Amino acid sequence: MEQFKVVLNDQEIPRQWYNIQADLPRPMKPPLHPATGKPVGPDDLAPIFPMNIIEQEVSRERWIDIPEPVLEKYLLWRPSPLCRARNFEKLLDAPVKIYYKHEGVSPAGSHKPNAAIPQAYYNKAFGIKRLSTETGAGQWGSALAMACQMFELECRVFMVRVSYEQKPYRRIMMRTWGAECIPSPSNRTEAGRRVLAEHPDSPGSLGIAISEAVEDAVTNKDSRYSLGSVLNHVLMYQTIIGLEAQKQLEKIGVYPDVVMGCAGGGSNFGGIALPFVRDKIHGKKISIVGAEPSSCPTLTKGPFAYDFGDLAKMTPLLPMHTLGHDYVPAPIHAGGLRYHGMAPIISHLVKEELIEARAYNQMETFDAGVKWARTEGFIPAPETGHVLAAVMDEAKRAKEEGREKVILFNWSGHGLVDLASYDDYLSGKLIPYELPDEEIKRALKAIDGHPKP
Amino acid sequence: MEQFKVVLNDQEIPRQWYNIQADLPRPMKPPLHPATGKPVGPDDLAPIFPMNIIEQEVSRERWIDIPEPVLEKYLLWRPSPLCRARNFEKLLDAPVKIYYKHEGVSPAGSHKPNAAIPQAYYNKAFGIKRLSTETGAGQWGSALAMACQMFELECRVFMVRVSYEQKPYRRIMMRTWGAECIPSPSNRTEAGRRVLAEHPDSPGSLGIAISEAVEDAVTNKDSRYSLGSVLNHVLMYQTIIGLEAQKQLEKIGVYPDVVMGCAGGGSNFGGIALPFVRDKIHGKKISIVGAEPSSCPTLTKGPFAYDFGDLAKMTPLLPMHTLGHDYVPAPIHAGGLRYHGMAPIISHLVKEELIEARAYNQMETFDAGVKWARTEGFIPAPETGHVLAAVMDEAKRAKEEGREKVILFNWSGHGLVDLASYDDYLSGKLIPYELPDEEIKRALKAIDGHPKP
Repeated sequence: MEQFKVVLNDQEIPRQWYNIQADLPRPMKPPLHPATGKPVGPDDLAPIFPMNIIEQEVSRERWIDIPEPVLEKYLLWRPSPLCRARNFEKLLDAPVKIYYKHEGVSPAGSHKPNAAIPQAYYNKAFGIKRLSTETGAGQWGSALAMACQMFELECRVFMVRVSYEQKPYRRIMMRTWGAECIPSPSNRTEAGRRVLAEHPDSPGSLGIAISEAVEDAVTNKDSRYSLGSVLNHVLMYQTIIGLEAQKQLEKIGVYPDVVMGCAGGGSNFGGIALPFVRDKIHGKKISIVGAEPSSCPTLTKGPFAYDFGDLAKMTPLLPMHTLGHDYVPAPIHAGGLRYHGMAPIISHLVKEELIEARAYNQMETFDAGVKWARTEGFIPAPETGHVLAAVMDEAKRAKEEGREKVILFNWSGHGLVDLASYDDYLSGKLIPYELPDEEIKRALKAIDGHPKP
Repeated sequence: MEQFKVVLNDQEIPRQWYNIQADLPRPMKPPLHPATGKPVGPDDLAPIFPMNIIEQEVSRERWIDIPEPVLEKYLLWRPSPLCRARNFEKLLDAPVKIYYKHEGVSPAGSHKPNAAIPQAYYNKAFGIKRLSTETGAGQWGSALAMACQMFELECRVFMVRVSYEQKPYRRIMMRTWGAECIPSPSNRTEAGRRVLAEHPDSPGSLGIAISEAVEDAVTNKDSRYSLGSVLNHVLMYQTIIGLEAQKQLEKIGVYPDVVMGCAGGGSNFGGIALPFVRDKIHGKKISIVGAEPSSCPTLTKGPFAYDFGDLAKMTPLLPMHTLGHDYVPAPIHAGGLRYHGMAPIISHLVKEELIEARAYNQMETFDAGVKWARTEGFIPAPETGHVLAAVMDEAKRAKEEGREKVILFNWSGHGLVDLASYDDYLSGKLIPYELPDEEIKRALKAIDGHPKP
């Protein structure tokens, strides 16, 4: 009988996260204070994050111990299986072996709890009582809701209004886990009220919701803010994915030629990729590829520049690939990964030519998602459809080149709470939209005059 | 570090299903032909099921080999983890150790694919081109849709209309897996047209949908019918759950005092329970408990009688606990497990006093579901809430008796596609409804004059 999965038992779970900052050939540029143009120090961030997390954000330690209480929550579903996609391989009929990390097995259905659990833990340990965050499609908000419940923290989630209305199941998840979910823009914050005064019917955006969540955290006692992607510590928590994958592949004596992930803010891609970037820095021959939507092509079309993380300019200036902090994806874009920026770590590694990026339009991503569901069973999240399109593309290239390849990718989550977009796709309501160059030019005006990294 | 899970690797998956008919102290009564009152023979069933499945329905072989192509599909997600619910245990503060089989890890999110995969396989092997079935909440319909896609069969699902309208995600799942999903009652069948003529706004019921699916199968070429519970072969396919659990418990040297499952038609409960019933027949001291809704109390309030499986009386008469074949649960009942009958195997084992049943109202089941989600993370299906209420009850008894107990139960599926009922519960819209005795008397008139088993 052929093997389909490599499982690890509880005792085999990695006990440390990997911090790529210890191994970078050239260090990353620091975030800047927008008023002074000077690097942001730990004290500048203290109203937003607890100091124990800030220390990890700037740490150069290679390995960071995973605290026992975090490990115990991880063990509710981790280690996640490493699966061989034999049925999808057959369909593609190309000289590739395809392995995937199945992050859909978590309670929230995605990789997001990997970062939510430690954030809740460290905030609790620092004496914080309440976390505020934002969520787009709802993956991050529901993951943090669960994590806060487990560590007895209050949780308030600002959810992009159009998603709040279109995805009632996501807010029911958050409510079931005991969190408060508020459609954004809201009248709870100055930032929200400002948007509503100008646009009473605003559908909201991640940029607006971040502004609201940050304001809510810094203006309330014993509260802090929590972000589900982009930042260094978030990507570090996600490295549990890649570290497990390395152990699992070792067990079957396989090393990948290509590692892939879909890329929005960069957390699931970084999670699987960073431990392999380390290998590459130390001489391994390996391609590492991020897949993003051609309707929000941050890495493939956005410049590497200093930009704000949010619309209201409440965050420091981050060195990252960006489409401009006031960019809002077109409503026709159904597939998630809508953030205007990209994790500074990922952006830096693209500049260093250690990883590369490719963009796919939503017809390609939903086509790949349906093909996957019909062969491998699991219905992928629309976000995950992007990496599946990239895997199909890579298989096609391997066939054309006549080269055998082992592909490893991160199956970031299932789509069972995001099925409406599949209905639209199967009903012929989607088009292969790509963001036009003139739109990009217009969006980039928002960063005119920003310093260059 | 404490252990939270016992995993099996691919090679450890059981290679045979267990058939309890080989071990019954007294044999089950046969199904009867309603016209003649005589036992139904294989030929009577041939228009409905393929002969290879009929042979399994009546087989007395103890072990049935799982065909290699079925095993290979099982391996997409099986063996499922056996988990220790340490956080739920802490909440209950009782002298119990709680282990659960996590059947929510399948692509459809429940145990249902365990039976859908072999049914699709055997029909395909018999030369059938198309399967018809019915579905209530949608768990079975989506599982069969996936299985048919994997074995290249067409699939038509009649879905109870009220669920079709309230649960759009379920029909999108079926569509994504390539099946046709039709709200029932429909004008596609004589049975459906008859209901619509009398009740144009009928919300539908499982009994009606079964009638439509059976008619659709027997009146179309190369078509057969497929049922997701109740029948012997369906329960046998589900024994993979209990057989895996036995292997996993053996690895840690544990044997349960109590085995529990929620019971609607009996497939997930039978799946975990039957291998342990075998142990009990051979002298093991063990309690085996099914948990059902007090709004559809088939085992605890319905008599053991011969009854039809469907409203239009198209099925044979089955010896089972029943509330009468035209019973329709009250609309206030939100928690699933709505079928009027119960698997003849389960009914027989209750009569033999090898298993017992308890009923819980929906306030208890959703309370248990929310408590579970807030400790163990995973949000259970409303059906699964019933076994959680039973586990809480059992823990309370253990505490009162001052006795240590090991509880094993089947966590039959997650609730991510059925969240609306959680919203109702959390908004205070549910009441602790129990089916009144006069309603039961009225419903049971439908079986007046039926033969007694």
